[in-house]
Amino acid sequence: MASRLLVGPLDSAALADAPALQARLTKPPGSLGRLEQLGAQLAGIAGACPPPVPEPAAVTVFAGDHGVLAQGVSPWPQEVTAQMVANFCAGGAAINVLAGAAGASVTVVDVGVATPLLPVAATAGGPTLLERRVRPGTADLSEGPAMTRADAEAALDVGAAAALAAVAGGARVLLTGDMGIGNTTPAAALISALTGLPASEVTGRGTGIDDPTLARKVAVVDAAVARLSSDRSPLRVVAEVGGLEHAALAGYIVAGAAAGVPVIVDGVIALSALLVAEALAPGVTASVIAGHRSVEPGASAALAHLGLDPVLDLGLRLGEGSGAALALPIVQAAARIMSGMATFDAAGVKEA
Amino acid sequence: MASRLLVGPLDSAALADAPALQARLTKPPGSLGRLEQLGAQLAGIAGACPPPVPEPAAVTVFAGDHGVLAQGVSPWPQEVTAQMVANFCAGGAAINVLAGAAGASVTVVDVGVATPLLPVAATAGGPTLLERRVRPGTADLSEGPAMTRADAEAALDVGAAAALAAVAGGARVLLTGDMGIGNTTPAAALISALTGLPASEVTGRGTGIDDPTLARKVAVVDAAVARLSSDRSPLRVVAEVGGLEHAALAGYIVAGAAAGVPVIVDGVIALSALLVAEALAPGVTASVIAGHRSVEPGASAALAHLGLDPVLDLGLRLGEGSGAALALPIVQAAARIMSGMATFDAAGVKEA
Repeated sequence: MASRLLVGPLDSAALADAPALQARLTKPPGSLGRLEQLGAQLAGIAGACPPPVPEPAAVTVFAGDHGVLAQGVSPWPQEVTAQMVANFCAGGAAINVLAGAAGASVTVVDVGVATPLLPVAATAGGPTLLERRVRPGTADLSEGPAMTRADAEAALDVGAAAALAAVAGGARVLLTGDMGIGNTTPAAALISALTGLPASEVTGRGTGIDDPTLARKVAVVDAAVARLSSDRSPLRVVAEVGGLEHAALAGYIVAGAAAGVPVIVDGVIALSALLVAEALAPGVTASVIAGHRSVEPGASAALAHLGLDPVLDLGLRLGEGSGAALALPIVQAAARIMSGMATFDAAGVKEA
Repeated sequence: MASRLLVGPLDSAALADAPALQARLTKPPGSLGRLEQLGAQLAGIAGACPPPVPEPAAVTVFAGDHGVLAQGVSPWPQEVTAQMVANFCAGGAAINVLAGAAGASVTVVDVGVATPLLPVAATAGGPTLLERRVRPGTADLSEGPAMTRADAEAALDVGAAAALAAVAGGARVLLTGDMGIGNTTPAAALISALTGLPASEVTGRGTGIDDPTLARKVAVVDAAVARLSSDRSPLRVVAEVGGLEHAALAGYIVAGAAAGVPVIVDGVIALSALLVAEALAPGVTASVIAGHRSVEPGASAALAHLGLDPVLDLGLRLGEGSGAALALPIVQAAARIMSGMATFDAAGVKEA
């Protein structure tokens, strides 16, 4: 499904109307900077100027595990992925606090956790868990393909279905979230493969690793990407060196954009998935807003490659969707400004 | 009053407890970057760890006019200050939309508008107008002192009283706002005088002026600051080259900090006032959070001089408190994280 979705261009009439409307509002022209660009993008996505405020918001956290953890690329044990899924469902993680503060719902999707999930009591109005495990974690991408092409397609479809379900349920803006011990290694591999940059420039310290571990991680990424040779089709790349949550996020982004809603992406995992999404459905990035600039070097590489200017730069490196959730009120404010402010004429304010 | 307020240091025990608490929360250490620093600062200000969420929030917009407008430093006519005060009171300005979205109240204080205010019907729960006019605008600072020292003290006291009234009314975080056609000229003069930087490095285009106007503005600032010679006491400086809203903001910041609440400052006007506040009450900046980095060069100069790292960088140059209001949800999130997240122990999540 996800690999066959098409994403059309933004609405050119609404895009053109946005700066004209913004020039009539009671403020010096251009004085709201990035907020005015965001407002125009939201108008183009919605096909309406002023754009509707993008709410309610839905954060979907895709969780998966990674065979490459066997290479010692992270100090965290694999079972933490499942433990954090339980923490998300119980409402105790950072994304629960940040999404709650921003009025966004949280859905957790097990698309490829390797260990059994702990039973969690659902709370009314609380996080939802979708059990959509394609396989129990990927194979070790340092030794061969992380997964089959069929697995990658299945994960893409899990992501696309989650996006469409969220929109069907009323969401008018989607936020990406992720959880997976070891998942910055496949993210770096995807970014290296799809930007052409060497592993040393796009591989970072993830949750916090020392110099020898970083050197090992760079070598793993380099070797895996070298196997791709010239076949860099997105499905091949994500199956060979990616992860299940990365593939699912790519499907989620494409389907969200195809459904006509803005998608706010989080950090390096989401940006690696966006590179896959853009390769699958060229133009999808026009519907995407980069929530923040993660400290991971791969994030900046992907942002530059995609021509994206992130809303926030707060030195974050958590994932889970945390940076997207923090950006949400600013994105919504960009729309509110366009429908909530008085014009010079209506307010009786003289112009310069 | 404001010139005699003292501000004590942050609570050292709460400051020290913050990183220890943050290390026990279910996330990699330090992974929330700037949010963790903000959380520690809020703990130090409140004297409690975790800190209370700083809410409700109050934005106070101080409005004044400027005799220096006669030198052609802005393309906007003076009556726009009064027209925008009416717009604030009617709820049609950017700060109304942004404060409303962030759940903050708006109070407008006429501390020195030059022209009559238009009658505005108050709306329940809507913006409040305080008529505290010290004088109808400043004198032309290019020709002599902008105001007397007594006027400057009176304006400081208007600001301090507004801060204390907001806190007495329940506010637990104060945001600075400002309105005044021509007010980036005195802001540049204050920043030049109090950082020692030449006018050419701290004077910007304000609402958007052309090269000849900018050159005139720089010359005006240079000449005014030169009159100060070696007497750079804050009251002398703000009376000689400042503005009524700048002086009021300085008093507001000092009184807010003295009352024990965080103060989120907006752009270049607020930062020029913060330089005055810091000179009046050394240490006050410890209670201040810079909401954003305005595109005005004086804002960056003041931020660097004060050692402040702004929360946002969105290319804003509007004023009114807009950048402070946009930063508010992020500041509040920094506190929410500390009380809302589970610890590793409580969530049964293994550590690295």
